[in-house]
Amino acid sequence: MVKVAVLGYGTVGSGVVQVIKDNNELVSKRSGTEVDVKYILDLREFPGDPYESLVIHDFNTIVADPEIGVVCETMGGVGAAYAFTKQCLEAGKSVCTSNKELVAKHGPELLEIAKANNCSYLFEASVGGGIPIIRPIMDALCAEKIESILGILNGTTNYILTKMEQEGADFDAVLKEAQALGYAERDPSADIEGHDACRKIAILSSLMTGKNVDSEKVYTEGITKITAEDFAFAKEAGYTIKILGVSEAKEDGSTLIYVSPFLINKAHPLAMVNDVFNAIFVTGNMVGDTMYYGKGAGKLPTASAVVADVIDAARHIGKNIPCYWDAQSAKLAELDDVSHKFFVRIKSEKLYELENLFPGGEELDMAFGGQRVYITPEVNEKEFRTAAEKLGDGLLGRIRVYG
Amino acid sequence: MVKVAVLGYGTVGSGVVQVIKDNNELVSKRSGTEVDVKYILDLREFPGDPYESLVIHDFNTIVADPEIGVVCETMGGVGAAYAFTKQCLEAGKSVCTSNKELVAKHGPELLEIAKANNCSYLFEASVGGGIPIIRPIMDALCAEKIESILGILNGTTNYILTKMEQEGADFDAVLKEAQALGYAERDPSADIEGHDACRKIAILSSLMTGKNVDSEKVYTEGITKITAEDFAFAKEAGYTIKILGVSEAKEDGSTLIYVSPFLINKAHPLAMVNDVFNAIFVTGNMVGDTMYYGKGAGKLPTASAVVADVIDAARHIGKNIPCYWDAQSAKLAELDDVSHKFFVRIKSEKLYELENLFPGGEELDMAFGGQRVYITPEVNEKEFRTAAEKLGDGLLGRIRVYG
Repeated sequence: MVKVAVLGYGTVGSGVVQVIKDNNELVSKRSGTEVDVKYILDLREFPGDPYESLVIHDFNTIVADPEIGVVCETMGGVGAAYAFTKQCLEAGKSVCTSNKELVAKHGPELLEIAKANNCSYLFEASVGGGIPIIRPIMDALCAEKIESILGILNGTTNYILTKMEQEGADFDAVLKEAQALGYAERDPSADIEGHDACRKIAILSSLMTGKNVDSEKVYTEGITKITAEDFAFAKEAGYTIKILGVSEAKEDGSTLIYVSPFLINKAHPLAMVNDVFNAIFVTGNMVGDTMYYGKGAGKLPTASAVVADVIDAARHIGKNIPCYWDAQSAKLAELDDVSHKFFVRIKSEKLYELENLFPGGEELDMAFGGQRVYITPEVNEKEFRTAAEKLGDGLLGRIRVYG
Repeated sequence: MVKVAVLGYGTVGSGVVQVIKDNNELVSKRSGTEVDVKYILDLREFPGDPYESLVIHDFNTIVADPEIGVVCETMGGVGAAYAFTKQCLEAGKSVCTSNKELVAKHGPELLEIAKANNCSYLFEASVGGGIPIIRPIMDALCAEKIESILGILNGTTNYILTKMEQEGADFDAVLKEAQALGYAERDPSADIEGHDACRKIAILSSLMTGKNVDSEKVYTEGITKITAEDFAFAKEAGYTIKILGVSEAKEDGSTLIYVSPFLINKAHPLAMVNDVFNAIFVTGNMVGDTMYYGKGAGKLPTASAVVADVIDAARHIGKNIPCYWDAQSAKLAELDDVSHKFFVRIKSEKLYELENLFPGGEELDMAFGGQRVYITPEVNEKEFRTAAEKLGDGLLGRIRVYG
């Protein structure tokens, strides 16, 4: 018998309670012991809720209750969530979380506390929502040296980019539509500026390298500058536009990590990943490419991943499930040293100058509202930036080309 | 310290030794103990092989050696492999295998013996080659009621179908090319007749239902009847052709399981899975659709999956890793009761008769060498078969349409 406490009765928290209750027979069978929810911690009351009677307001009740073996932290944020997680782990209670911000910020410390107290800190839901990605990396690919991780890691931006492509619409219009549908937050900046994807690729990179990747040091570019014109040109040229998190192990032991929009060839499997779906490519030195695909967010997919962790924790009460993520900082490679092709949207009269700056690229035979586009040959990031400055406001937009 | 014995030094077996040796530091770290290969069992000698000195010919040496904690069965077949696996498990040694035939045939019995002897029978490599699929189902999706599993499960047939589509070539010609390249066996029947995919979907269905699915009872149709004409018509209509293994939980508690070629809309993610790549969709009641993609076969991908199992076994020496697959037979649904659209290729003069048999379908405005095609409305399998018989040899081909 393992009793569970859920911290935060919001979207994910209520989903966790629902999955444990609705799939209870299965959850208990797979845990090898009866599993049930004993407490729901929230500041609010939930009159009329079927689990109203489980709601409590005092966190100390949970820490002090020896029956509680597993705690689900679905509060979010790095304040109370951090303090509560620490106290639970110090009390030997495993914590399962969907809180990517906390995992990205304090992962190694919390893993260390879990280890010292013979319990586990598990965070499958923090990266892929419902897509199993932490476990494949930790377990199924554990015989691999992982060489790269690359993926569409944020459902909101992928929804926006998909709609922009399909409807030829502008960023602002689609963002408003996404907000109205609940696919984007009222303050959408964490998604559209790429911070959410950045935290996720930082977590994945930490697991890939075994060292700590500070998400605040990762170059991150959002999608706010992508326009309907970019899509019109990209489409004609056989591309779509996606925002990707990228992590590549370099031969010198450093890791190149960044988040950026990319032009992707329509024939690439990632080009088919639309709407709120996410997909993550993991490349190992033995297995080659593998891909994981599914809904990266949403109440029940995320809750299901939290409960998978609850089952794992329940199977290992009194034991630490190991996670190879040290506090030591991973060495990050400089983006400046990397080369890409760049898709450049430019005022027509500047095309000649652009071609002279980056000769040997691909001039696309399209013109639109006084604009032209040109795909440069592979050029170093720093060189591109320096040269592009010469174009001044003639340069209307530039997007990295993947592959 | 865990010592490993490898049974069979063929393609996969030599890959297992290579992965354990080349990634040794990582394999040992993730196992939480030093892992190394002590014996390689094979009837042959391997003069000049770097691990020549580990080769032995007497299986009893392995069973009798208390240092051996984990055995990799990479022999194949259901004769000696079955006897050796049983003896190892009875001696408390965990067995990790890539042998889908043995897992499909004797899975529940071997799992039971493992449980009784506090060791594990692990078979990640038996279904997806290098694609993690057993663990996601067993662990990451363990809070889910899995509703369906659907996938491209065989690399050889997917390679053949991809080439047929891309080159407009005939089945026989592409098969010969695949054999010359080593992508198809000299006796290709297990692949092209669908038996390999059948064993894999039977194993996945057993894990999905928790009961035993006898692969010999699963309706299986291969790709030998697919022609260049089928592809020409399908392509024009916006489809490609893939052979899929399908498993669907029905409301009455039965499971519909079969292997068949399908027309798939070009916009579906599975249509993008080409060459020797495999992809498996798993749909859960909470998470919705998830997909796993990678190389379904090949020396190192398969070996990597075996070694991931070795690491798991090494972490759990003296303990059984549970697997929910009882000996009790799963109830199979009748394919006859299922409805599909059918893509029918027919002699031109019979088109009118076909349309009268299945009115309301889609007549494609294409003709080719005295042939026409017609897509029926959804029609019950049994009704289709009965009606189609009336067309005699006028019916040149028929393929189920997916979705």
